[in-house]
Amino acid sequence: MQSKIKHIGILGGMGMSSTILMQKYLFEMHRHNYKSRPLPLVTYYIVDIKKVFEYQFAGQWKPYADYLSECIIKLEKSKCDFVSIAAVTPHIVYDSLCEKAKIPLLNIFANTAHEFEKKKIDSVLLLATSFTAKAGLFERNIKKSVKKVILPNKKDQEFLDSLIYRSLAVGEKKESYKNEISRLIGKYDCDGVVLGCTDLPLVFSQKDTSIPVIDTLRCHASATLRYSYRSE
Amino acid sequence: MQSKIKHIGILGGMGMSSTILMQKYLFEMHRHNYKSRPLPLVTYYIVDIKKVFEYQFAGQWKPYADYLSECIIKLEKSKCDFVSIAAVTPHIVYDSLCEKAKIPLLNIFANTAHEFEKKKIDSVLLLATSFTAKAGLFERNIKKSVKKVILPNKKDQEFLDSLIYRSLAVGEKKESYKNEISRLIGKYDCDGVVLGCTDLPLVFSQKDTSIPVIDTLRCHASATLRYSYRSE
Repeated sequence: MQSKIKHIGILGGMGMSSTILMQKYLFEMHRHNYKSRPLPLVTYYIVDIKKVFEYQFAGQWKPYADYLSECIIKLEKSKCDFVSIAAVTPHIVYDSLCEKAKIPLLNIFANTAHEFEKKKIDSVLLLATSFTAKAGLFERNIKKSVKKVILPNKKDQEFLDSLIYRSLAVGEKKESYKNEISRLIGKYDCDGVVLGCTDLPLVFSQKDTSIPVIDTLRCHASATLRYSYRSE
Repeated sequence: MQSKIKHIGILGGMGMSSTILMQKYLFEMHRHNYKSRPLPLVTYYIVDIKKVFEYQFAGQWKPYADYLSECIIKLEKSKCDFVSIAAVTPHIVYDSLCEKAKIPLLNIFANTAHEFEKKKIDSVLLLATSFTAKAGLFERNIKKSVKKVILPNKKDQEFLDSLIYRSLAVGEKKESYKNEISRLIGKYDCDGVVLGCTDLPLVFSQKDTSIPVIDTLRCHASATLRYSYRSE
């Protein structure tokens, strides 16, 4: 008998387009790798992004974590077996969310780290929000898999924050972003690039560059589906 | 006190891209019309499309309905308060599904009919699968709202079936489809067009023609969100 397929809970809406991309990845990966089995049930809880951004920009990580925990409780009540957060920045409070959750929370870094090992990347340029960069999230979580995490300089980080919060999070997409990101990458001496914010794959992917690109959202979708089918 | 927001169940995967479009519509409509309230929980159950197509093409509507009822039970168990089917063709067995369901099933035609009234369309060209056309689904469900439902001729219906089942359902999209659909519409004397298959808005919309277009999926997403917020 095949083991029970776990019901996936997605905490999303940070932003909305990347949450839809997560669903697209899940569907595509199911078609490619698990076609003989039913797709798991997927329940989405979409956060109040205004509230999330307010706490985030004010650095109020305690109420931020409390609010996200409340959202996770909604997913627990809908009988989800585990939760994947479809965004990187909330992983700043991952430990605190785990403490309060009754069901497992997949960590977005678990599978990302594995991808660095597979691609043999020694030094990686981090393209992420300044919150993720400042919190040292990648350095801490992938330290066994990559020797050096390179952070963009102040000006480039400002460009990334503006791109993420002023454009992608509100559903704006320009073709020019591809070139701007390519130019930014060209300035740094690195073996690979990590799209360390789940909004970035909306405008940039491996197709746009010859340097290895790690797409955190894609890694997370893959880990989410694998975990759902895993017998325990 | 605001009334309870109902948890939406979506029976989808027929096809996959239109299910993602349904989610996109829900998100957009929430942003435009209900921004001050949280987005409802949304749970997706994705059907085994191979099974669904097999029953459908063999005209085995009893096992088809039985299978869809099983899927709806999974949504009931996840505490959904009601179900929207993100496809038109399954509405052939809508009455039978309602009989077995413990929670309400929104009918995709309820809001579509309303749209015909709003746009004052007398005669409408039906772009749908041959199953929907043969079953007389639109004629039966929107008869109070529109005087005449025009069906495409045999060759045009074959083109639509091929477009839907061989291309859109498997994620293929060509720019040329827009022109082919426009040419098809041009052959008929009608006041409006209904995209009576939820895959069609993936390649054709009001932007592509001057004649009024009713997008069934968009109407259904709007009705779904409204029902979720409605107090009872």
